[in-house]
Amino acid sequence: MAPHDDSTAKLAEETMVAETVSKPISTVVIIIAMQTEALPLVTKFNLVEDPNSVFPKGVPWVRYYGTYKDLNINIIWPGKDPASGVDSVGTVSASLVTYASIQALQPDLIINAGTAGGFKAKGAGIGDVYVASDVAFHDRRIPIPVFDLYGVCAKRAFSTPNLLKELNLKVGKLSTGDSLDMSPIDEKSITANDATVKDMEGAAVAYVTDLLSVPTIFVKAVTDIVDGDKPTAEEFLQNLIAVTAALDQAVTRVVEFVNGKCVAEL
Amino acid sequence: MAPHDDSTAKLAEETMVAETVSKPISTVVIIIAMQTEALPLVTKFNLVEDPNSVFPKGVPWVRYYGTYKDLNINIIWPGKDPASGVDSVGTVSASLVTYASIQALQPDLIINAGTAGGFKAKGAGIGDVYVASDVAFHDRRIPIPVFDLYGVCAKRAFSTPNLLKELNLKVGKLSTGDSLDMSPIDEKSITANDATVKDMEGAAVAYVTDLLSVPTIFVKAVTDIVDGDKPTAEEFLQNLIAVTAALDQAVTRVVEFVNGKCVAEL
Repeated sequence: MAPHDDSTAKLAEETMVAETVSKPISTVVIIIAMQTEALPLVTKFNLVEDPNSVFPKGVPWVRYYGTYKDLNINIIWPGKDPASGVDSVGTVSASLVTYASIQALQPDLIINAGTAGGFKAKGAGIGDVYVASDVAFHDRRIPIPVFDLYGVCAKRAFSTPNLLKELNLKVGKLSTGDSLDMSPIDEKSITANDATVKDMEGAAVAYVTDLLSVPTIFVKAVTDIVDGDKPTAEEFLQNLIAVTAALDQAVTRVVEFVNGKCVAEL
Repeated sequence: MAPHDDSTAKLAEETMVAETVSKPISTVVIIIAMQTEALPLVTKFNLVEDPNSVFPKGVPWVRYYGTYKDLNINIIWPGKDPASGVDSVGTVSASLVTYASIQALQPDLIINAGTAGGFKAKGAGIGDVYVASDVAFHDRRIPIPVFDLYGVCAKRAFSTPNLLKELNLKVGKLSTGDSLDMSPIDEKSITANDATVKDMEGAAVAYVTDLLSVPTIFVKAVTDIVDGDKPTAEEFLQNLIAVTAALDQAVTRVVEFVNGKCVAEL
C-alpha cells in the first residue's frame, strides 16, 4: 500500500472511530452466566429466545433479543453445559460467548452482569451492586518475568463517570477466577489485585472486549461475603434469588441510562 | 418441521457423519501456544504466515499454512499478547483460537501440541512425549453438586489406537490449569484427575472441540518434573528448546501417520 493510501486509510479509520463514539448506542449485548440471573431481565425487556441461533451448531449458547426503547437488546446466556446440565459458568465459556457475540452482533456496548463474592473488609455487603473500575485474574500464576503480568492481565474498565454519578452505584475492583471457593494462594492474588468483588467471568469478558475494542461495563451484585464466616457455596445459593433481583434492577437502570446516549456520554 | 422431515434430516445427517469419518483427512489444525514450539514445525512443513488473516482485526492470533503431502496444514499460534508482548498462553486464548479456527477452517482433525510438566511418580521424564488419553481441569473448583463435575470437565480424548501402536508414544492423563506453578490445592485436584502430565491449554481445547465435534489429539512433551526438586519456571526455561525438538519430531510423526487416512483409521 502506498504512503498516500496509508494516510487516507488512517483518516477514514479515525473518522469512523469518531462517528462510532458520537453515534447513539444502538446494539447492546448483556452477558450473563446463569439462567436464574438472566430470566427476570428477559421478562423485564420483553425479549424472546432466538429460534435461529446466530451461534454454530453444537454450542449451548442462548440469545434472547428484542427492542427496548431505542435499543436492540441481546441477552446472551452461555446455556446449560451439554455434558453436566448446569450453567456454563467460568472464564472459558465467558470468553467464547463474548467473542462469538461480538462477531455475530457487532454491539456498541457490552454489559457483563452477574453475582459475585464481596469482601466486607473493603465495604461490601450482601445485595450491594458494584460497577467494576478495574478487572484482573487471580488464578493465572506464571512466575516468569512479564508472563506474570500477562497472567494477571489487570485492566482498567471502560470509564463511565456520568453513569456512576447518576445511578449512585458502588465502585470497586473486580478479580476473576474459575473457582467458587478461595484457596490461600488465590487470596494472596486477590489481595494483590486490591479487589472488592470476586467473580468467575469478568476478566475473561474484559480480555476479549479489549482485544476487539468494545466498551464494556461490569455490573456485579454481592451474593456472599468471602471474608465472612459462612461457607461460600451455601451463602451463594441462599442469597442467589434475592440478590438477582437487586442485580436485575441495577442492570435495568444502566440500560435506561444508556438509552439515547453515545458511549462518550456514559 | 413434520415428522417425515425430521427422519429425513436425521438420515442425511447420519450419512454426512459416515462420509466424514470414512473420507481421508484433508485439513489439519495444529494449535500451539508458544512461538518457540511452533516455529520449527512451520519450517519443517514449509508453511507461510497468512497475510490476510482469517481472524478478526484486533486479535493477535497467527495462522501459518501450506500443503504437506495430501494435507492442508494450519499451525495456529495465539500470538503475542498486545498488552504484555508474551505468548498468549492459557485456557482463555486456547479456547478462543480453537473456536475461531474451527469456524474459519473447518478442520477434519485438530492436534494440540505443547510442552507440559510431568509427574515422575507416574513415570514421566524430561523429554518424554505423551498422547493424552483423558483431559480435565484442576483449577475450576465449584463445590456445588454437579457444578463440581462441570468444573473438572473430565473427558476421554479421541481414541487413536493405531497411531499409538505405530508410533509407540507414551500415553497418560492430562490435567490443565492456568498457572505454571502448582499450589497445594491444585495438587489435590491433579491427583484426583490421576494426571501424568500437566499443561495450561489442553482441557480448554478439548472443551471446544467436544462441543463442535472435531476429533482432537493432544501431544505433550515434558519440560519439567512437577514432583521433582527443581523450581518449575527455571527447569521449564532450561529445557524448553531441547524438549521442543522432541515435541516437534513427535508431531511430525503424527502428521505423517495421519496423511492419507480417515479419522476412523487413527
